[in-house]
Formats: sequence, structure tokens, C-alpha cells
Amino acid sequence: MRRFVIGRAKSLLHRSYQYHPKDQGLLQLRPLASSHSRFLSNTSVVDSPSTSSSSSSPMAPLTVDTINPKVLECEYAVRGEIVTIAQRLQDELKSKPGSLPFDEILYCNIGNPQSLGQQPITFFREVLALCDHPAILDKSETQGLFSADSIERAWQILDQIPGRATGAYSHSQGIKGLRDTIAAGIEARDGFAADPNDIFLTDGASPAVHMMMQLLIRSEKDGILCPIPQYPLYSASIALHGGSLVPYYLDEATGWGLEISELKKQMEDAKSKGISVRALVVINPGNPTGQVLAEDNQKAIVEFCKQEGLVLLADEVYQENIYVPEKKFHSFKKISRSMGYGEKDISLVSFQSVSKGYYGECGKRGGYMEVTGFSPEIMEQIYKVASVNLCSNISGQILASLVMSPPKVGDESYESYSAEKDGILSSLARRAKTLEDALNNLEGVTCNKAEGAMYLFPRIVLPQKAIKAAEAAKKAPDAFYCQRLLNATGVVVVPGSGFRQVPGTWHFRCTILPQEDKIPAIVSRLTEFHKSFMEEFRD
Amino acid sequence: MRRFVIGRAKSLLHRSYQYHPKDQGLLQLRPLASSHSRFLSNTSVVDSPSTSSSSSSPMAPLTVDTINPKVLECEYAVRGEIVTIAQRLQDELKSKPGSLPFDEILYCNIGNPQSLGQQPITFFREVLALCDHPAILDKSETQGLFSADSIERAWQILDQIPGRATGAYSHSQGIKGLRDTIAAGIEARDGFAADPNDIFLTDGASPAVHMMMQLLIRSEKDGILCPIPQYPLYSASIALHGGSLVPYYLDEATGWGLEISELKKQMEDAKSKGISVRALVVINPGNPTGQVLAEDNQKAIVEFCKQEGLVLLADEVYQENIYVPEKKFHSFKKISRSMGYGEKDISLVSFQSVSKGYYGECGKRGGYMEVTGFSPEIMEQIYKVASVNLCSNISGQILASLVMSPPKVGDESYESYSAEKDGILSSLARRAKTLEDALNNLEGVTCNKAEGAMYLFPRIVLPQKAIKAAEAAKKAPDAFYCQRLLNATGVVVVPGSGFRQVPGTWHFRCTILPQEDKIPAIVSRLTEFHKSFMEEFRD
Repeated sequence: MRRFVIGRAKSLLHRSYQYHPKDQGLLQLRPLASSHSRFLSNTSVVDSPSTSSSSSSPMAPLTVDTINPKVLECEYAVRGEIVTIAQRLQDELKSKPGSLPFDEILYCNIGNPQSLGQQPITFFREVLALCDHPAILDKSETQGLFSADSIERAWQILDQIPGRATGAYSHSQGIKGLRDTIAAGIEARDGFAADPNDIFLTDGASPAVHMMMQLLIRSEKDGILCPIPQYPLYSASIALHGGSLVPYYLDEATGWGLEISELKKQMEDAKSKGISVRALVVINPGNPTGQVLAEDNQKAIVEFCKQEGLVLLADEVYQENIYVPEKKFHSFKKISRSMGYGEKDISLVSFQSVSKGYYGECGKRGGYMEVTGFSPEIMEQIYKVASVNLCSNISGQILASLVMSPPKVGDESYESYSAEKDGILSSLARRAKTLEDALNNLEGVTCNKAEGAMYLFPRIVLPQKAIKAAEAAKKAPDAFYCQRLLNATGVVVVPGSGFRQVPGTWHFRCTILPQEDKIPAIVSRLTEFHKSFMEEFRD
Repeated sequence: MRRFVIGRAKSLLHRSYQYHPKDQGLLQLRPLASSHSRFLSNTSVVDSPSTSSSSSSPMAPLTVDTINPKVLECEYAVRGEIVTIAQRLQDELKSKPGSLPFDEILYCNIGNPQSLGQQPITFFREVLALCDHPAILDKSETQGLFSADSIERAWQILDQIPGRATGAYSHSQGIKGLRDTIAAGIEARDGFAADPNDIFLTDGASPAVHMMMQLLIRSEKDGILCPIPQYPLYSASIALHGGSLVPYYLDEATGWGLEISELKKQMEDAKSKGISVRALVVINPGNPTGQVLAEDNQKAIVEFCKQEGLVLLADEVYQENIYVPEKKFHSFKKISRSMGYGEKDISLVSFQSVSKGYYGECGKRGGYMEVTGFSPEIMEQIYKVASVNLCSNISGQILASLVMSPPKVGDESYESYSAEKDGILSSLARRAKTLEDALNNLEGVTCNKAEGAMYLFPRIVLPQKAIKAAEAAKKAPDAFYCQRLLNATGVVVVPGSGFRQVPGTWHFRCTILPQEDKIPAIVSRLTEFHKSFMEEFRD
């Protein structure tokens, strides 16, 4: 008998389980025979001497009761219980083929395009390989294997690195030449100046978000305004740093609209509770909600932050992922500068990542934050925190410079690069539309358009009988639905409760990332499952 | 007029500087005309509208007085003031060649071998390049450019990655197949079993240390025993997480010996102050002190941790860097298991990094921690924190598997690999000896042997007159000495005060990493400078 539990430590207190994570499988816990045996020794090849016992320690060993409670409080649903169950099913498919009503697990839980078959952009990988092994750069065989512009770009990058040492720690903000390239890319995107000294290269966007939370949060009396639904990195980071998440609700009825009145209301409410709100998180394009903010809305947000003295933390990692012709990405820096607001008017941090866009290079852990409108003393503190970890990985740094400066018209790789990029983005747009339509065809399901990003976040109106069944199973109703979906179809989606949502409403997040040839199967499996679920629980 | 200031924010409070970091140059601050203008807008190309002004904000903008005080408290000397000065001098050398009494800056401040000309291990870079661009793996030209075993290894690694997707997020502990390889490498090293499920791959060792501190520290009442002198990552991480560093002093007179009586004394002292000591940090081989612990000493340390119920945090990143035949590296896990202590007897974390050893791949940010002797509930919490950052970079993961599983006898690359490895390690041993002898020849300087790691940490007995001059310049005496050394010779070393030391003693840390052809110049410059310094300040 096995039980599979995850990410929510509190429910585990006072139970004894054998920790046994599996590949991709996260946490798999088996109950032990005795609650007194703390855990089995599954690694020791030497028997413990008869005299030794944990009870001989004069101090109690570390337990979940004595670790940092902020760690306990932190939750991260995207890799939570649902993924553990999926892994168990995947193991079953391997060991007993044909034993389940489906023959593969389709991971729609996480924005991880290459895990679902998306191919990397050739030019980017060529440059990375050459920078990893510069010894081949002037070999004749290299001309046959790599494009001329990738070779040229690799030389350019190497020349920006002191001693061409791609194996050395860099400046803690990242290699200056790469930051110059990124700043030029930002300028070209926005039409406003960008300073390489404002750029901090990081291992993906997540460490950058943590750095800002670490800087801003002093205690639980410091609040950060976050959209609900939100990407759980924010709630997790705020919890780990001991602050308060001040929620503002996006309006599902208006396509996940962000209302300034709601920001004001929640800010007043937080103030009345003694919470000092320090920053506003905006995710644009939205995760998990997929909306792209309108320019006027962005202006109003900038004005609000300026008036309230809030740091604007702009998660702009999906800036390349826009699927509707009527919407366009505008960075908050561009919006601010176009309003005439300069460095001294607004404190703004923009996060970017190589994990998203059409490149989807999640495993490379590249990204940056552009930090503007902070005093030199604060910049010094941010730099110091960055320097404690020395620097971000150089391949990720190089890739961050490449995504902000891809091949241009006339470059040898330009055509193949453009074809790869357009192929990926247009396919994502088609997938988003197909899935959105399919979801909207389901009884009791409404799904806003994915204008951007990589997700759909449909609302499901569940029958009372299903809600009661979920209660009986001690699960949130959306988690109950998602687990039933997984068990019936092999499709992995994340319950809306992992992102927070208006109380009493239920959702799930589904990526649009499975390859196009899988989409019809997903649609038919989902449709069939939903029908039988609704039949089973019809009130 | 310029002033150059760094890493110590408190000294900057109530001053107004223009933040202007330069390449490699960290922080460069220029005084502003008016203390009321918070900072210049050096990036905005649009003028602020006349109505806009920071004073219009109803809330005060972010200042160093209102950020997280833990960030302010944190210090990191290795990239501190001395490096800022070095960068200014490097700029001067560039703009006015011949204007200084030396023609290059020699960075002996940081363990960054490839920045000083050390070449990467060819086999490792071949495999990395092939994994970055697998499309070339079956091209005929590739056979001419890459060794047969690097091609084979790349295939093996790709086969361990679901979908061969090196651009996908991995399991949050790292790719399972790579963890299997690392566990096998640990078993081969120690002769005791290792479990891949105990391994967490990280972006270098630093994030792993932060994760453990985050887990262990609840408040300033939680203490971590750290060696003094210590690598400032530990003091910085403890400060950032709000804990108390409980110092234990290494005994310089016995080659930086670690005395159990000292551990006991400091632990009692901490207890008497109401501090609950949770863990013991041991750095072996030592940083900055270079000693390699004797086996009996390690056993006593294990016994102490077991008796006191302390988590043993073993920084073992220099495990490949041993320079004396009479000493050998033993991991604390091997020592514990050889004493008969298994999983339930001692909680032990071993940190390893690709940045050190003979490989010195700092820029790749690869590393792992092996976590043993924790309950499943705690393992789950560590996993959860790892999952919030998704995963470490895949190139770093691959490299971590390679350093724990390098080419073997019979592999095509074995001979060239061995020659590269032995060349680097034997050269490092020679450099360590030459520099140690040179330092011991200086008046008032005593320097313990670098048995391992990458540093010498000589003690300097400074004349009273020098100490008074340092006081007048508002500098620690060793910082005063190091700055004078830098200004006179271009050699960058880190003042001992950045690592902490017995009060009233003065040291500096000097890496042994400059290439061998630079060593004679360093010795003569250092000797000449020291003589004139001592003459100038003779009491």
C-alpha cells in the first residue's frame, strides 16, 4: 500500500513516511511500520553499532516543528501533488503497459516547452556550443557544422569576456559586454535609453524576484500587492521572506482586467491592518491568466505606483508570447518613460527570462532584471546581495544576450531563425485557440482568451455533488477535478487553488504547450472526461 | 574628483553618491552637487514633466533606512572595496598606460582560476558543447572535432534526459541519471553507498548553503558554529537569514587546528546567551586557511555533532585540491560511516562545486549537496524550497556529473585528461610552496602551509606606527596594508578582517592561482613592497 503526498508539510506533521522521490516524481512517501522509527536507513551499507541510537542525542534532532516556519508556510503548486500522482502513473505505464486508460502522460502543468518536444532555436544553440568549446572555433570542420554568423557571434561574445574565459566567474551583475547587448536590445524594443549598469543577469527570473523580495521585506508588516490569480513564485517568495501578500483580484468577467479601484481598495484594507505596502507585482502577459494589459491600463498602474510610492515589480517574461493581433507588448519602462516619468519618478524592476518566449530555454537558467529609479545606496545593496552568489551561469548570460539580440536581416541564419521563431509562435497561437474553444464548449466551463503567455485558466462551475465528494475526500474541489482528469486521461493540469482565486470559484491552469499533433487527443480526452464527470456528479 | 566606496552601506547613509558601476568594477560612486537631489537621471532620454517630482509622492521612496536590515548587515569581502580600487587602477592602466608603477593588475582575491589563464579540461568542454547542440552529434565533421568518448558520453547524458531536452526544466533535484552518476562517484570515492535521492544539484555551492541556512534559521536565537577565519559566504548567508554566527577559532599555531574543546567552549558560551546552536560548519580543505583535517580530528568532529545533535554542514568543495603527500581528503560522510554511524545517527550535508578542484569551472555554476540523516518530512521541505526555483542550470548539472565521473583508463581522452589534470594540480602545488616560502621570508610575516584549497592566509605583525596610520585613515590595519600593496604593485589580496580573525591579529588571503610565469614577479613585487612598508612604519 502506498500513499503519495506532497508540498504541504502541515498535513504531514506527526506522521511518519519514508521519503523516496523518483525521477520527475517529486515526493513519494510510504508509511512506516512504527511511528517511533524516524526513518529507514536506505543508504547506509554499514550497520549502526548497537550502542548508537538517535535517542542518545542530548538534543532533539531536527524536525518540522523546529525548522524555519517560513519554509513550512511556503507552497508551490506547479510542482505539487498532482505531479507526484502523474509520476506514479508514468511509472505504472512503464512497468505495466496497457494497464491504464491512456498510454502517455501529457504534462500541461508547467511552462516547460522543450519537455514537450519544442525544439531549441538552432542559432542560439550553435553560439552556446561554440562558447562552451572555443578551441574548435578556428578549425576547418567547424565551418561545415556551424553557420557563419554563429561563429562570428561566438567570437564577438568571447572578445567581451576578459581572457575569453567562459569558465570564470563574471562581474556579479553579469559580463559587461553582454549587458551592453541587452541594454541595446531594450532600447530597440522600447525606444527609450537603457543603461547596462541597471541590468543584473540572474539564473532565470526566479532568483531576481527573490532578491527584490529580500530587499523589500522586513517583517510580516511589509506587504506586496500581488494579482490573484498569481504565479506561485510570488506567494512562495513572500512567504519565505516573511512578508504579507496583499491580494488584488483580477476581474475574470472583463478578461482578467486589472482595476485601479481594486488596487486602491486592497491597499487601504492592508493599511487598516497595519501593513505597509511596499511594492506592486504585475505579470504582463498574465500568468496563469494570459491577458495582455492595454496601454491605458498600464499608464494608470504606473500613475498609481508613483502616487503611492510603490516599487513596481513587472514580470515581463512572456513579452514575446502574444497571440492576438489587437494586443501588443509594452514594457512598463517604456510606458513610464512615454509618460515623461524618469529615474526619479518611479522605482521599477522588469524581469525577463530565457525560459519563455519562442525560445523556451528553461534548462539554461538565464534571465535578467532591469532595475531603474533606485538610489545609488540601494543599487549598492542589490549589487552586494548579487555578489554573495558571485554570478549567474555564463551560458545563461550568453543566451539572455542572444534573445535580446537575435539574428538580423542579412545574417546567414536570419531566414532559418525567423522560420523557427514564427513556426513556434504561430503554432502556439493555434494551440491556444483550439484549446480555448474546446474548453468553452464544455458544460459549466468558461475560458478567457489566452492573449499571451502560455496558459489557459478556465473557470469550472462544479455541481454541488462534486463539491461534496471533494470535501469528503479532503480535497479542494478543483484539485478533486484535476486528479480525476489525470486518472482518467493522463492530462496533468494544476488546480486553480494553487494560484489562489476568488473564494467559491474553481479553475485550473492548462499550458498550451503540447505539440500540435497531440492537441486533438487532448481535446477529445478532456471533452469525454468532462462529460462523464458532470454526468456522475449531476445534482 | 572621485571617490570610490563599496560594500558597507552603513558608511554611506546620509551621503549622496552617483552609482556608476563599471565592468568588473563593482561600485563606483561619485558625490553629487546637492544632497537633496536623490540621484541623477542618467538613463532617461525624456525629460520629466515639470509637474513631476519625487517630493510629490505621498509615501517616502525606498531608502537604506527602510530596506530589510538583514541585507544591510550582510558583508562580502571577497568582492569588496579592494576590488573596486583594483578596477579603478585597471581603468587607469588602460587610459594612461605607464602611469602606474606596474603594468597589470593581478587578481589574487578570489578563487577564479580561469580568469587568471587556467585552461578548462578539454573533455568536459567537449561534452558540454555537444549537449548544447546535439544536432551535430551524428554529423561526420563532428568525429574530426571531438574525441570519441566525448561523443559517447554526450549520447549517454542525452539518453538520461527525458526527450533529450537539454533546454527543459529538470526534476528540481537535478536530472535523475546525472544524480545516479554522481552517487556512483561518491561511492567510488568513499567506499560507502550513496543515494541519488539524497543529492540536490545546485547553481554552484552557494545556493545550497543558502537553502540549508534558510531551513535551519528561525531567528537571531538560532546559532550556526562557523570557523574563524571563515569563507564570508557563511557570515553573509547567516546575516541574510537573520541568525547568529557562533564563532569557533582555528588555532593558527597548530596549522589552523580545529580543537573540540574550542567547539565546546563556544557552544556553552552561545547557550549561556540564549542561543540555540543548530549546526556546525566545517570547511575542509580550509578556506581561507588551507589546512586539511586529519582523520582523527574529523572523527572527533562527527562525534561532537552526534552528541550535541548538530547538523554537520561540510564544505568539501576543495576535495580535489590537496598539495601535500601526507594528507588525504576524507569526506565527512565516509568518516561517519566508517565509525558505524548511519542515517539515523547524524544529520550531514556535504557541499561540492564544479568551481574548484582542478577543473575550476566557476562560470558554469554547477554543484550539489548530498543531504543525509534527515527525516522524510525535512527532505520534503528541502525539496519544496528547491522546487520554487524550478531547477539548477543543466550545463552545470552535466558538469557536476562529469567531475564526479571523469574519463577512465582506456577511454580515448584519458591520457590528455590526466595530463591536463596533473599539470594543473602539480603546478598549483608548486605555486603554493613558492608563495608560502616567499611570505615566510618577509619580516613579521608567518604563513602556514597550504595543504589544500587555493589560498594562503599569512599573518602579518604590523608595526604600531602602521596601525596608527590605518586608524587615522579609518581602515582596519590589514585593509590599510592590502590597499598599499595594491597601489604599489597591482597585486589584489583580501584583508583578513573580511574573513574575521583573532582580535588584534592581522592577515590577508592570497590565492595561489596566478599562472606560474607570473609568480616570480609577484614574489619580487611583494617582497619589495613589504620591505619598504616596514621601513616606512618602523616603530
